[in-house]
Amino acid sequence: MLYPFTAIVGQDEMKLALLLNAINPSVGGVLIEGEKGTAKSTAVRALANLLPPMETGATAMTVVELPINATEDRVVGSINLEKALQDGVKAFEPGILHAAHQNILYVDEVNLLDDHIVDILLDVAAMGVNTVEREGVSHSHPSRFILVGTMNPEEGDLRPQLLDRFGLSVMVYGEHDPAQRMEVIKRRLAFGDDPVSFVASYAESERALHERLLQARELLPSIIPTDEVLLKIASISIGVGVDGHRPDITMMHTARAHAAFHGRHQITESDLKIAARLALKHRLRRLPFEEQGHDEDRIDTVVTAVLEG
Amino acid sequence: MLYPFTAIVGQDEMKLALLLNAINPSVGGVLIEGEKGTAKSTAVRALANLLPPMETGATAMTVVELPINATEDRVVGSINLEKALQDGVKAFEPGILHAAHQNILYVDEVNLLDDHIVDILLDVAAMGVNTVEREGVSHSHPSRFILVGTMNPEEGDLRPQLLDRFGLSVMVYGEHDPAQRMEVIKRRLAFGDDPVSFVASYAESERALHERLLQARELLPSIIPTDEVLLKIASISIGVGVDGHRPDITMMHTARAHAAFHGRHQITESDLKIAARLALKHRLRRLPFEEQGHDEDRIDTVVTAVLEG
Amino acid sequence: MLYPFTAIVGQDEMKLALLLNAINPSVGGVLIEGEKGTAKSTAVRALANLLPPMETGATAMTVVELPINATEDRVVGSINLEKALQDGVKAFEPGILHAAHQNILYVDEVNLLDDHIVDILLDVAAMGVNTVEREGVSHSHPSRFILVGTMNPEEGDLRPQLLDRFGLSVMVYGEHDPAQRMEVIKRRLAFGDDPVSFVASYAESERALHERLLQARELLPSIIPTDEVLLKIASISIGVGVDGHRPDITMMHTARAHAAFHGRHQITESDLKIAARLALKHRLRRLPFEEQGHDEDRIDTVVTAVLEG
Amino acid sequence: MLYPFTAIVGQDEMKLALLLNAINPSVGGVLIEGEKGTAKSTAVRALANLLPPMETGATAMTVVELPINATEDRVVGSINLEKALQDGVKAFEPGILHAAHQNILYVDEVNLLDDHIVDILLDVAAMGVNTVEREGVSHSHPSRFILVGTMNPEEGDLRPQLLDRFGLSVMVYGEHDPAQRMEVIKRRLAFGDDPVSFVASYAESERALHERLLQARELLPSIIPTDEVLLKIASISIGVGVDGHRPDITMMHTARAHAAFHGRHQITESDLKIAARLALKHRLRRLPFEEQGHDEDRIDTVVTAVLEG
Amino acid sequence: MLYPFTAIVGQDEMKLALLLNAINPSVGGVLIEGEKGTAKSTAVRALANLLPPMETGATAMTVVELPINATEDRVVGSINLEKALQDGVKAFEPGILHAAHQNILYVDEVNLLDDHIVDILLDVAAMGVNTVEREGVSHSHPSRFILVGTMNPEEGDLRPQLLDRFGLSVMVYGEHDPAQRMEVIKRRLAFGDDPVSFVASYAESERALHERLLQARELLPSIIPTDEVLLKIASISIGVGVDGHRPDITMMHTARAHAAFHGRHQITESDLKIAARLALKHRLRRLPFEEQGHDEDRIDTVVTAVLEG
Amino acid sequence: MLYPFTAIVGQDEMKLALLLNAINPSVGGVLIEGEKGTAKSTAVRALANLLPPMETGATAMTVVELPINATEDRVVGSINLEKALQDGVKAFEPGILHAAHQNILYVDEVNLLDDHIVDILLDVAAMGVNTVEREGVSHSHPSRFILVGTMNPEEGDLRPQLLDRFGLSVMVYGEHDPAQRMEVIKRRLAFGDDPVSFVASYAESERALHERLLQARELLPSIIPTDEVLLKIASISIGVGVDGHRPDITMMHTARAHAAFHGRHQITESDLKIAARLALKHRLRRLPFEEQGHDEDRIDTVVTAVLEG
Repeated sequence: MLYPFTAIVGQDEMKLALLLNAINPSVGGVLIEGEKGTAKSTAVRALANLLPPMETGATAMTVVELPINATEDRVVGSINLEKALQDGVKAFEPGILHAAHQNILYVDEVNLLDDHIVDILLDVAAMGVNTVEREGVSHSHPSRFILVGTMNPEEGDLRPQLLDRFGLSVMVYGEHDPAQRMEVIKRRLAFGDDPVSFVASYAESERALHERLLQARELLPSIIPTDEVLLKIASISIGVGVDGHRPDITMMHTARAHAAFHGRHQITESDLKIAARLALKHRLRRLPFEEQGHDEDRIDTVVTAVLEG
Repeated sequence: MLYPFTAIVGQDEMKLALLLNAINPSVGGVLIEGEKGTAKSTAVRALANLLPPMETGATAMTVVELPINATEDRVVGSINLEKALQDGVKAFEPGILHAAHQNILYVDEVNLLDDHIVDILLDVAAMGVNTVEREGVSHSHPSRFILVGTMNPEEGDLRPQLLDRFGLSVMVYGEHDPAQRMEVIKRRLAFGDDPVSFVASYAESERALHERLLQARELLPSIIPTDEVLLKIASISIGVGVDGHRPDITMMHTARAHAAFHGRHQITESDLKIAARLALKHRLRRLPFEEQGHDEDRIDTVVTAVLEG
Repeated sequence: MLYPFTAIVGQDEMKLALLLNAINPSVGGVLIEGEKGTAKSTAVRALANLLPPMETGATAMTVVELPINATEDRVVGSINLEKALQDGVKAFEPGILHAAHQNILYVDEVNLLDDHIVDILLDVAAMGVNTVEREGVSHSHPSRFILVGTMNPEEGDLRPQLLDRFGLSVMVYGEHDPAQRMEVIKRRLAFGDDPVSFVASYAESERALHERLLQARELLPSIIPTDEVLLKIASISIGVGVDGHRPDITMMHTARAHAAFHGRHQITESDLKIAARLALKHRLRRLPFEEQGHDEDRIDTVVTAVLEG
Repeated sequence: MLYPFTAIVGQDEMKLALLLNAINPSVGGVLIEGEKGTAKSTAVRALANLLPPMETGATAMTVVELPINATEDRVVGSINLEKALQDGVKAFEPGILHAAHQNILYVDEVNLLDDHIVDILLDVAAMGVNTVEREGVSHSHPSRFILVGTMNPEEGDLRPQLLDRFGLSVMVYGEHDPAQRMEVIKRRLAFGDDPVSFVASYAESERALHERLLQARELLPSIIPTDEVLLKIASISIGVGVDGHRPDITMMHTARAHAAFHGRHQITESDLKIAARLALKHRLRRLPFEEQGHDEDRIDTVVTAVLEG
Repeated sequence: MLYPFTAIVGQDEMKLALLLNAINPSVGGVLIEGEKGTAKSTAVRALANLLPPMETGATAMTVVELPINATEDRVVGSINLEKALQDGVKAFEPGILHAAHQNILYVDEVNLLDDHIVDILLDVAAMGVNTVEREGVSHSHPSRFILVGTMNPEEGDLRPQLLDRFGLSVMVYGEHDPAQRMEVIKRRLAFGDDPVSFVASYAESERALHERLLQARELLPSIIPTDEVLLKIASISIGVGVDGHRPDITMMHTARAHAAFHGRHQITESDLKIAARLALKHRLRRLPFEEQGHDEDRIDTVVTAVLEG
Repeated sequence: MLYPFTAIVGQDEMKLALLLNAINPSVGGVLIEGEKGTAKSTAVRALANLLPPMETGATAMTVVELPINATEDRVVGSINLEKALQDGVKAFEPGILHAAHQNILYVDEVNLLDDHIVDILLDVAAMGVNTVEREGVSHSHPSRFILVGTMNPEEGDLRPQLLDRFGLSVMVYGEHDPAQRMEVIKRRLAFGDDPVSFVASYAESERALHERLLQARELLPSIIPTDEVLLKIASISIGVGVDGHRPDITMMHTARAHAAFHGRHQITESDLKIAARLALKHRLRRLPFEEQGHDEDRIDTVVTAVLEG
């Protein structure tokens, strides 16, 4: 029995980033940074439960975990050569990247992942295809997924190359309002004591959010960014000073998803503001000794300047 | 023949933490820090001997050790592929995590454990399930245990991530009172010379404690924390400044267990005081050069401020 | 469906370096340095699609990737000894270096490649032949390829020995002009929404470039550098202070290719200027704390001095 | 042919520590620190030769060596799975820890031992049982031994955890008195030239010491420490400031053995003085830059203060 | 088709060192230090092509390469135990050291070679015999070769032990004279465009050099160093301050080869000068921060002093 | 054909140390330190050729080399378990330590030896027995040898533990007298040109030395050190300040061998002087920045003081 998405107290930015990915997978995944014990994994599981499948006709979406100590074989799959030779057929044992196709690939503590596995992940995320080869026998299968990672920045950084592969990033903190915090314990206790009743009491809010997501997905293709919007996106990236063109493209997809979530046919300035915050923060070139709060200020200042022309 | 729990001289905080876990496994385990040669392992074994099984109908609880040099195979179990292929059945060789289910998992010198094994432990502790996969064959089994670890802080730290997975923490020291200390040698000598008589002389006190634990377990479900109590717990966590919501939930479970141990139907301020001390100490963000004694002062000051309103 | 070469916005130096290699493979490959997300891999794939095969009569040119985590066996191929002994025939399983023959060998993040694989690559690139030996059985095959590598200089350097094996080097940056940048997003979106129409709209420009490349290839052998040109090349190398004679030979081949690309029968000063910039930058002895911009100035100053006599 | 124990010139403290262990194995072993070439290994072998077996009815005691480069398999033993499966019987190949049971386990240069093997040794020493497990098949056997280790402190330290497992510690030096030293060479030469006559000339002193040991063993159980003695032991440990209660228990066993060696039925102050020196020196918390001589002074000062009340 | 030895522009010292080895293999090999891209490998291959075989009656001399990543098995050869046991015959698979016998063993970037392989090389070079042993089966074969190594001093040093095993050492640089440098490009281009004609145009100079080498070889045994010459050699070594007697012996062999190359029956002062330069430079004890140019001055000063002596 | 021992120019101390070991193997081996290219290996081989076997009735003594990269299996031998199980007999494949029994074990560059192999060597040298065990099957054989090692102190030190296992140590240098040095080259050249005649010309001096060694061996047992001599030896060790008693015993054996070599029945002061120099130098505790020359002075000063009483 899963804790309902709508029963999660607070953590609005994390929930929004997850929902925008659900509406438009081109957004490219989320990196969730922050304290331990802040419902990161609960939220991801709850989202998957809520989601319609990524492409029509597919089965329900699931969360596929990539354990921190997974071997290469386990991640990419393996080829059983003996079997292949004996039976004359390809004997591919699919791995995590196969299971992740059209699903959420969840990597807890992504900054502790082995470098070698990170490289594989980057390659497959870039190609959308996983290829396994062993002594001349090879097997390929599509592997397109929403990449969700979590990390505690106190335990080490991520290579800029890997950071850049996450479409969006959010920070999560424990609640600081005592009443909110009490609400967290209370709901945990209620869910622990009687999960069935607890889930039932959120059935309506879950259904409503599910409906809203479906409508947003339908609306999405009709939201075409105007030249003015694209020019603003480009100006924001230049102003903030990020590498390459991936930030622009992510902002554009995020703004479209946000407009769709709000039932709008056009991208507004508020969509751009949200998109810039979510898509740029982890792509800034960090100066030594610089605080993260300053990052957000830098982005907001540039966005305001661009939007006000 | 095991040394009786009630024959252990002093070490009251360690004994209390172990008993609260025995009453309410949701407390989430204990980390015992301190000097070598302070009866840590004796106490854990004695507790297991005293305990009724975790869930009704199960066999008596045991202490399962995780040796410092255990291999991954030994911990999670292994799958015998040859056998699986030949006999057409799953051939799972269960490991330590299987044996630990519904028992105490004891890790001596947990800070010297291999990082890789720590990661596995964290995963399973979080999920309550152990999953082993090898070349496409997989096996899962429940693995819920009371995690008890010991460490000598002089020999290295624990990652905050792992510290956070222990519900409670206590410090143990050698006795400093000569009479108490003499009593320790005396009982050791008596137990060494004639274990049967020694154990017999503690039969009554052991039976009484066993009885008290059973009654506390029965009382536990009826102790429902009031909103006022929950608000105090949340305020304590905010005041002390710990990460995430796990400390609140642990404090709540610990306070309930402590109330039950004292036969109370309501959580009192004294339950909260004890719970805060046991649940928060190892979750404080340590400042450089800060002494541990100060930690306890910090907690007590916040608790007093919150309780006095 | 591949993004067309002529649809890439900006990045003129990178596109030129790739085209000169396509005209004259003796130029010896390109190292593309720069920010992530700057269409490096898109450009290489697009070029291959555009290219006539390297030698007449061969099949169409492809891009062969060398994955960052490729094993030695995967790169050089392997010999199946059992099969060799049983069947009495050589049982060579060809690797990436076999597939790369007469094609583009693309190494993304070449500076992160394992030292051991780099050594193999250098040996084969120098010899034009790949030899695999195992317990007395050996197999050789030709392996001549256009080596294209990318690297992000922030993530580590390349050994001078490996740098020297790339004929040319270019730097790429994200666009800094908002209108250009908007154009990038726009084309990406258009290609994403309807690849077929998008590719069709560039069919004419692609055909024209293909035609120009064919003519340049035909013209190439007739362009014989005069003694005066060769003396200038030698003087530039001496003036700039590079190791050995490989820079001279690369400049000569690059200047010929550039003349051919412009339909000229003679090498002009402008060909030499371009050739010097592309062939010398990564071969300069870098002084500590020296900026790259200064490198280009140093080259330009020497070239100007030599050409003005 | 072994060099006789009573023919060893000087080294009185080392010889005493070995003899006390022989009388009362609960003393818990000896760590011999000091210069190379000081008859450490000769003394251990000579003692074993002299000793009656540890438990009545057993065969003569031997010295089992743990070579510095022993593999885990060699130390704990191994399970032959194939044999186990074929014959349906447990196929345990016993290792060094099996051979060491009821004997002396001798580890030369214990500070150079592999960490992994040290951990195994500590576990088995603590439990008195060696358990080997491999893929679900397991075998246990008792393994109780007198642990004797040597180390040259110039070549590296021991972890405090391992130091604490040696009951006693002694320092050995080469003789500094020329006449004593000449005697060493002379006896060596005599033993080398004619071992049979040399051993024969010590037969009487060996027999006498053997007899004395047997009587001390018989006397031992009747020596019961009074409360006054125990209180003094506890006060010494508190005064000196050592970790945990193991030092007290070791002192008590050592004092009893020393009393027995001198044919006394009561523990006297001289027994306590000797026991404190031998049992506490390696358990002191070493301050930086502190000389070892100071350690002994610190112990003596505390012992005197406690005994004089 | 190989580039002719006599078509190499400049690099006179390197060419001389190679030729002296060809005349008298007792000279003991050459270490070629210097910039990348300076025809080192071209020269070695060209020499082998030019050479008569090392001992009369043997087949033509070849260049055997020792690849930087060669495994021990590949270098020394391997013994196929299964085959040996089945067929009752020694089943030795010869390695690179077998192929190198009576040939040139060429090690590119010798300073990057694995330490383990270097040790093997030193052993075999010292013995003239390669012995392979595996589980009691052993095989030996002669392995006498001219060792030619190249290194780029910027990429790391060689152990003095290995340096000492090279008879001679030379430094190579790119040409600094523009006309010479132009000649290099021109000949490269000509050889690339039409190798057959190019090689034909050097047939006469190649034949002449071949003839001269044959005559020098014939003359060599008759050149007996006088006591005066030997005394001068010894005095030079003492004056320069090199380790051991190998430098003297190498100088003597080099001077003989140089006299033979010039058709002289006696060793002259000019032979000694050349021999001292080539044989001593890499054997000097390098002082910290000392420039290499100073090395040559030091040698020349000592040589002059001794000869004028 | 081996270079004769008596044809070696100079190096008197090294030759003496080797001869004393040959007369009395209890001296315990030699460590030869010094420059490369100083006939160390030639001398050891020549000595073996000259020697009568270590024990009467054995075959001629040989030099067994321990290659720097020898595996443990190769050194200690291996047990072929399959063969042992099939044939029911012990299938021990003897290693280097078997071949070394009653011979010279020669370790070139002993300071570069793998630590693991050094530990094995020390164990066997101490015991005189080599024991191999594998999965419960074990094999032992005697392994007593004269250990001769060489090292270049510039390439790394030896652990004091290993240094102490060499009975004697000597330093070797290249000759500094030009005439002597010329003689070295001359004899090398003569031996190289016509080994048979060269060896024949030293037949008489070789025979004479062989005879002298035989007589010394015969005389040896009758040389019994007086108490006065032993007291002097002990006083020298105390005065110089060396660890343990091994230096005294080595000095005694060396002095006896030296007396025997000179045909004396008594140990004289000159024997003691030589023995002290050879046996103590490598056992001194080295102070930081201290020169080796001072070591010899320190020894000589102490020896003089002791002898003059």
